Amino acid sequence: MAKRVTGPEIEKLIQLLAKVPGLGPRSARRAALHLVKKKDQLLGPLADAMGEAHRKVRICSCCGNVDTIDPCTVCSDERRDHSVLIVVEDVSDLWALERAGAMNAAYHVLGGTLSPLDGVGPDDLNIKGLVQRVANGGVRELIIAVNATVEGQTTAHYITDQLEGMEVKITRLAHGVPVGGELDYLDEGTLAAALRARTSI
Amino acid sequence: MAKRVTGPEIEKLIQLLAKVPGLGPRSARRAALHLVKKKDQLLGPLADAMGEAHRKVRICSCCGNVDTIDPCTVCSDERRDHSVLIVVEDVSDLWALERAGAMNAAYHVLGGTLSPLDGVGPDDLNIKGLVQRVANGGVRELIIAVNATVEGQTTAHYITDQLEGMEVKITRLAHGVPVGGELDYLDEGTLAAALRARTSI
Ligand SMILES: [Zn+2]
Ligand SMILES: [Zn+2]
Repeated sequence: MAKRVTGPEIEKLIQLLAKVPGLGPRSARRAALHLVKKKDQLLGPLADAMGEAHRKVRICSCCGNVDTIDPCTVCSDERRDHSVLIVVEDVSDLWALERAGAMNAAYHVLGGTLSPLDGVGPDDLNIKGLVQRVANGGVRELIIAVNATVEGQTTAHYITDQLEGMEVKITRLAHGVPVGGELDYLDEGTLAAALRARTSI
Repeated sequence: MAKRVTGPEIEKLIQLLAKVPGLGPRSARRAALHLVKKKDQLLGPLADAMGEAHRKVRICSCCGNVDTIDPCTVCSDERRDHSVLIVVEDVSDLWALERAGAMNAAYHVLGGTLSPLDGVGPDDLNIKGLVQRVANGGVRELIIAVNATVEGQTTAHYITDQLEGMEVKITRLAHGVPVGGELDYLDEGTLAAALRARTSI
């Protein structure tokens, strides 16, 4: 924009909105204008919700989920079967699998996958915490639900090696997850089927 | 989501984000997760920017633009030619025309178009304010840059009638704006050409 047409506060808002996934620079302007027009119905409540999330959000010290309590909502849910852990790369995968609604298990969020080229080694992921959870006992099955990518499979093998000799059944998602695909983009039906048809590693 | 996987604060954030234009329910979840992961780099600053915009934003009492000062940045810009007013339906059109960068004029935002079927009459728009600005003198040209829709053209005619007998040149955007099209979606080049080739009504 050659000349300023609005105050720096609104320009700032547009700049920050453009960094939100799903919004580019043009849609950020449209979003900002909509927010500003719905000042009291949307902008104010959203500002408050973001402020509250910013103050309260934390990573679950048990499973790596994102929540406002620690242990998180999933870890402290007594109706779940905590003897089954679904191991995922990212919190978005945990959310996607929960939407599939096929399991009543607990989770473990790795925070990524092994990727030597990107400098991501075992210590950069939440793998020690996983081994510790299994070593503490009470876990009878690990469902390794990483993405069907090379890095995902490498990570699955590394985890399986780390748990060698421990008494835990290790399974993976059934094929049905498209090779190279990202869990978070799959429909609920495919995810549910892949969970039900999981196979022993 | 059958069972809760995260705290009510984050669910609330997702619900509100889903109301932002450009984000649906699924992309709102992805956006919320991204924000939460970029807690200090993005979520916090965005919360602050929204809060500040919410507290400060107002409608310019002169032209109807949205800003944090009144008169707005455009109205108080002494380098602009305030004897030329570009009349637009919406603030988004003002922003779009400024991106075209073809004029150094001031603006008047109507806040919509006449639409008897939707119960929008002259008193629901910022038309009296426009007539007053012209009556006050100092305006030599009005460029009526409403959308090329039936309602837009009806509104243009109504305004022209209201200004009958006043000494002001009234022009409209050159054809080049696609019939039925919305200004806000046009590229800068088309908008600039339409402004340059404007014709007398
Ligand atoms: Zn947890
Ligand atoms: Zn103004």
